[in-house]
Amino acid sequence: MSERDDAPYELFYWPAIQGRGEFVRLVLEEAGVAYVDVARQPESEGGGVGVLREMLESELDQTPSFAPPMLRDGDLLVSQTANICLMLARRHGLVPDDEPSRLHANQLQLTIQDWLTEVHDTHHPISVADYYEEQREEARERASFFIEKRMPNFLEYVERVLDSMGGDWLLGHELSYVDLSMFQMIRGLEYAFPRAFDSYRHDVPGLITLIDRVRDRPRVAAYLESDRRIPFNERGIFRHYPELDAG
Amino acid sequence: MSERDDAPYELFYWPAIQGRGEFVRLVLEEAGVAYVDVARQPESEGGGVGVLREMLESELDQTPSFAPPMLRDGDLLVSQTANICLMLARRHGLVPDDEPSRLHANQLQLTIQDWLTEVHDTHHPISVADYYEEQREEARERASFFIEKRMPNFLEYVERVLDSMGGDWLLGHELSYVDLSMFQMIRGLEYAFPRAFDSYRHDVPGLITLIDRVRDRPRVAAYLESDRRIPFNERGIFRHYPELDAG
Repeated sequence: MSERDDAPYELFYWPAIQGRGEFVRLVLEEAGVAYVDVARQPESEGGGVGVLREMLESELDQTPSFAPPMLRDGDLLVSQTANICLMLARRHGLVPDDEPSRLHANQLQLTIQDWLTEVHDTHHPISVADYYEEQREEARERASFFIEKRMPNFLEYVERVLDSMGGDWLLGHELSYVDLSMFQMIRGLEYAFPRAFDSYRHDVPGLITLIDRVRDRPRVAAYLESDRRIPFNERGIFRHYPELDAG
Repeated sequence: MSERDDAPYELFYWPAIQGRGEFVRLVLEEAGVAYVDVARQPESEGGGVGVLREMLESELDQTPSFAPPMLRDGDLLVSQTANICLMLARRHGLVPDDEPSRLHANQLQLTIQDWLTEVHDTHHPISVADYYEEQREEARERASFFIEKRMPNFLEYVERVLDSMGGDWLLGHELSYVDLSMFQMIRGLEYAFPRAFDSYRHDVPGLITLIDRVRDRPRVAAYLESDRRIPFNERGIFRHYPELDAG
């Protein structure tokens, strides 16, 4: 882009989880642009989790962020996952340039973000400041509602979107950043709720095909094989607690 | 706008609550553009809540919506609150046109949307399909966490943003749609948690001044006095349950 020099983007996100940062990482990887995952660098090279805390408390930025992920490009510092993803997609050809397509993409992306918040709340329905183990009973109730009602609602909705667009991708005939985010959502559900997800899998054939298409993109495939991809784990948003899953 | 004919926008939202639709209504009102609040029209004139359900299930739209609010402009149908607000703001001069300003505005708007979801979950921590009365104990725990930790976190963040921008408005020297949404958030908190909010009021003088400025905008003031403004009530997102408030 003419407005950028060649310095890599700097991504600031918790270094040990996929979390919301993963939605940004997937866009950066598919776009094939250079970036530094800052907090994953050694502390001796300016990395580590302390960098994130310093940034969140800094009085220096004119646009303070409420929470990671943040993305820096020179003087520009941007936060909120859907906001970062849309910016990158517009700059690097991962969303069409016309207003209706951008609005539709953002509409889908924001629906994925809402869905993600509901996934998070299955293990933290009461307080993010407390451990899962301290809200296990409430988590069981919330997860049960999520699995029985919300997961099928969201899945059916996505299948309808795919039907109505009539192409290979969520926006129709070209891959966009929203497909990457949908891939992450489905991989996460498969990890966190394998039994529940399996019970819905056959209701969403279009979606399953879409996810396979994303998985087979050469840059996505290379990324997933690399050590830049942090494995799912029980500190992230998608957590596999067998007692929260249902068959 | 050259791309529009003079037909009014059509807003589709639940007719008896402010809810997420209110963030859109405030942008439409401040912009001074014509709109029809469709579900609030008489059923004999195509209004009523049934219209919403039909739209959500319709196979006719190429861009199906997961949930209200939706906004229609001719062939364009858009959902997700932050998405609709940004579209309207760009078209009607309620956000600057440069990329950094748009990104900063959207970053703040998405933070308000996250905050709003947390407000909602204070009375519905387990399941939106059940009544508050069925999750009252969990609501008490969640509301207590929200009031003690999250509300001050968000409020302090906004005050920092105002300090860092150094103008009269969240984006600096001109009112934007984000100020309208912040107004709605604060009025909602004052309604739902009057004692808790009062305990933080003096920590955020910049924010309180901002809210007064929004209130005094002529079009906002006229709207708030009109019967187009639905009163806060216990079916919306901001609900006043005294047992969830704290002094």
